[in-house]
Amino acid sequence: MPAASPAAASPACDPAEAPFVARSQEGGVATLALARPAQRNSLSEGMMAALTQALAEIADDASVRAVVLTAEGPVYSAGHDLKEIQAHRGDADRGRAYFEEVLKRCATLMTAIVRLPQPVIAAVEGMATAAGCQLVASCDLAVAGAKARFCTPGVNIGLFCHTPMVALSRNLSRKHAMEMLLLGEWTEAEDALRMGLVNRVMPEGGALAGAQTLARRIAEKSQVPVKLGKAAFYAQMELGLDDAYAYASRVMAENMLARDADEGISAVLAKRAPMWEDR
Amino acid sequence: MPAASPAAASPACDPAEAPFVARSQEGGVATLALARPAQRNSLSEGMMAALTQALAEIADDASVRAVVLTAEGPVYSAGHDLKEIQAHRGDADRGRAYFEEVLKRCATLMTAIVRLPQPVIAAVEGMATAAGCQLVASCDLAVAGAKARFCTPGVNIGLFCHTPMVALSRNLSRKHAMEMLLLGEWTEAEDALRMGLVNRVMPEGGALAGAQTLARRIAEKSQVPVKLGKAAFYAQMELGLDDAYAYASRVMAENMLARDADEGISAVLAKRAPMWEDR
Amino acid sequence: MPAASPAAASPACDPAEAPFVARSQEGGVATLALARPAQRNSLSEGMMAALTQALAEIADDASVRAVVLTAEGPVYSAGHDLKEIQAHRGDADRGRAYFEEVLKRCATLMTAIVRLPQPVIAAVEGMATAAGCQLVASCDLAVAGAKARFCTPGVNIGLFCHTPMVALSRNLSRKHAMEMLLLGEWTEAEDALRMGLVNRVMPEGGALAGAQTLARRIAEKSQVPVKLGKAAFYAQMELGLDDAYAYASRVMAENMLARDADEGISAVLAKRAPMWEDR
Repeated sequence: MPAASPAAASPACDPAEAPFVARSQEGGVATLALARPAQRNSLSEGMMAALTQALAEIADDASVRAVVLTAEGPVYSAGHDLKEIQAHRGDADRGRAYFEEVLKRCATLMTAIVRLPQPVIAAVEGMATAAGCQLVASCDLAVAGAKARFCTPGVNIGLFCHTPMVALSRNLSRKHAMEMLLLGEWTEAEDALRMGLVNRVMPEGGALAGAQTLARRIAEKSQVPVKLGKAAFYAQMELGLDDAYAYASRVMAENMLARDADEGISAVLAKRAPMWEDR
Repeated sequence: MPAASPAAASPACDPAEAPFVARSQEGGVATLALARPAQRNSLSEGMMAALTQALAEIADDASVRAVVLTAEGPVYSAGHDLKEIQAHRGDADRGRAYFEEVLKRCATLMTAIVRLPQPVIAAVEGMATAAGCQLVASCDLAVAGAKARFCTPGVNIGLFCHTPMVALSRNLSRKHAMEMLLLGEWTEAEDALRMGLVNRVMPEGGALAGAQTLARRIAEKSQVPVKLGKAAFYAQMELGLDDAYAYASRVMAENMLARDADEGISAVLAKRAPMWEDR
Repeated sequence: MPAASPAAASPACDPAEAPFVARSQEGGVATLALARPAQRNSLSEGMMAALTQALAEIADDASVRAVVLTAEGPVYSAGHDLKEIQAHRGDADRGRAYFEEVLKRCATLMTAIVRLPQPVIAAVEGMATAAGCQLVASCDLAVAGAKARFCTPGVNIGLFCHTPMVALSRNLSRKHAMEMLLLGEWTEAEDALRMGLVNRVMPEGGALAGAQTLARRIAEKSQVPVKLGKAAFYAQMELGLDDAYAYASRVMAENMLARDADEGISAVLAKRAPMWEDR
């Protein structure tokens, strides 16, 4: 069920008309593509609203079992729209209210990825910088093309990547995260793999296909354990060991009682393929 | 002092008679071997009880200074016994009370490894899956044979590896842990090394010897710092920086007052070998 | 503005006269060199006091924009001065009060690095052991020479490296940290790189130049985002995801209101070099 063809947002279209985010779907895999390549897919107000809205729709869409987050054009995402920020410096409060509102919307978007019931896989070609790099770090999994590059360059323009740091420092070891944040230099795909920012590096141009392959594998599984598991992952990460086990044990007992766990375990014991409730 | 020869649990024996866990000891190194190879060393009720009991005995056994946790046969451990789980679906509560009890016992076992005064080193050949993978993640150190493989496959049978996740996500970076948990695919020994799930990869068949070598080195040290240090490691990991320093400083001052710290420091200053109190 | 030439602390000088820490400065980069090579730069009372004092001065010195922490001689730092510790075993309380005081001063020193407004980059040649290894782990970034080696050997002398553990376990994955702490063996520079203890490995003898290169790059940036960002990094690491975003968003809004963020963003939009307020 393709919701919007990626072609609908090609540069030849009127940007005012074209959607910021092109959604397509094949089987249980929805692909969201940032569709403002001429604006380097910056996380403008319009883009953040469109992406947040697309995620909200997917959250309620039982037909979607996994999500790929990709981008059109040579830049994955350049982060916040700096022109929008500068336009508010003349406000009576020098922009404070606007800045707070933009950052609130951005955090809402990033945590919407983390809290989305379905797993989200970033498919990154080209540059992912600042909040664009944060998008990748916020996804559950990430696949990069060989020429993908990552950067938190805020420190070079007087504005540290404070909020990208939140996602980045929960993916990388401390000294790796600090190096990206303090130096604002490029991290190549292979280094991003070594550091844990991405899961796979594909030949250039292969990120989308690689991410969709992973997404299809996830989509073939019962959605009960996938959704319970993703939510529990982030919840238990914030707990101490005993609390984490108490929490995860409660969720797992619930999962055991689900019809698909009964079916899946019965199938493996009978050496047959399982039939999921929702397929 | 070999308590039970590994041969005592060979497949030729009557499984009803043979111990679930074969314990042997050489010097200060106790080796616990999961001894149900025909059942792929699944963490059945019997296995969990036997392993928890063996750990409790070791906790109180001053002769044990380090522990190796290995397994007989080609499978390290296949995780929970799925037949036991399915057998309780006919209970009046559809198994809820039983599932909660099994998961409680499993968490008790895993945290018993973490809380054991002596360090525990996993020696893994073959497959370690689900709660079997959790065993490895729960050990302080791990040595794998070159053909060892790790997997959290629950998602493939409708039952996410929620409790293995607790241990796994405290060993691996987030995207690595999520990849294992959401895809349920095999992680080879070399990748497990790169990701931080194991400390060493030995040639196939060499995991036990490798783990015992590390265990012997630990057993030669004074047990005062080893036991204080292991316990403090996990305790301070759950604290913020200032609290962690306050806590670790208190423990270290206690350690400094111990006879063996006096002896050890005196020995190094005198360029002689130390004589530990308990050797 | 060289404050003290490194030569001032050469072994030929009277140690009682020479400063424990040699400070020099070139542009915005201050270099602190542990200057007791004959004592293997141990963190004696004198050394800890001098280093803490030097950091306190730098914290208030607007001319310093980045700090390199290096050492004279073949040993980076051998950790606590064991003779000072042993000298207090005859105290009425067997040294307890002294030990607690020394460990408090050490934690104060290590957290002073973390809390210093300016980034600190370790430049390590030779051995960094125990609290010397903790110094490296406590720095924001670290550059090692190819022959640099790291060790937490306390376990070998009856005194576990409890407080070095606090810094180490916040840099390395659990099994890597446990391996260093329980075995007390050497970690070579390349392994330290792989584990995340250092950011770069330079040819032998190149650590200082490598660290100063990174420091100069940081010193060229506006100090507003650097200082806000470093402080926020460690603060948000101790928070859950939602609290971390709320905190980082507040800091980022403040940063956006700073003159240098306006200048930096204006410059990038105009494709010109920014002019920082404090340069």
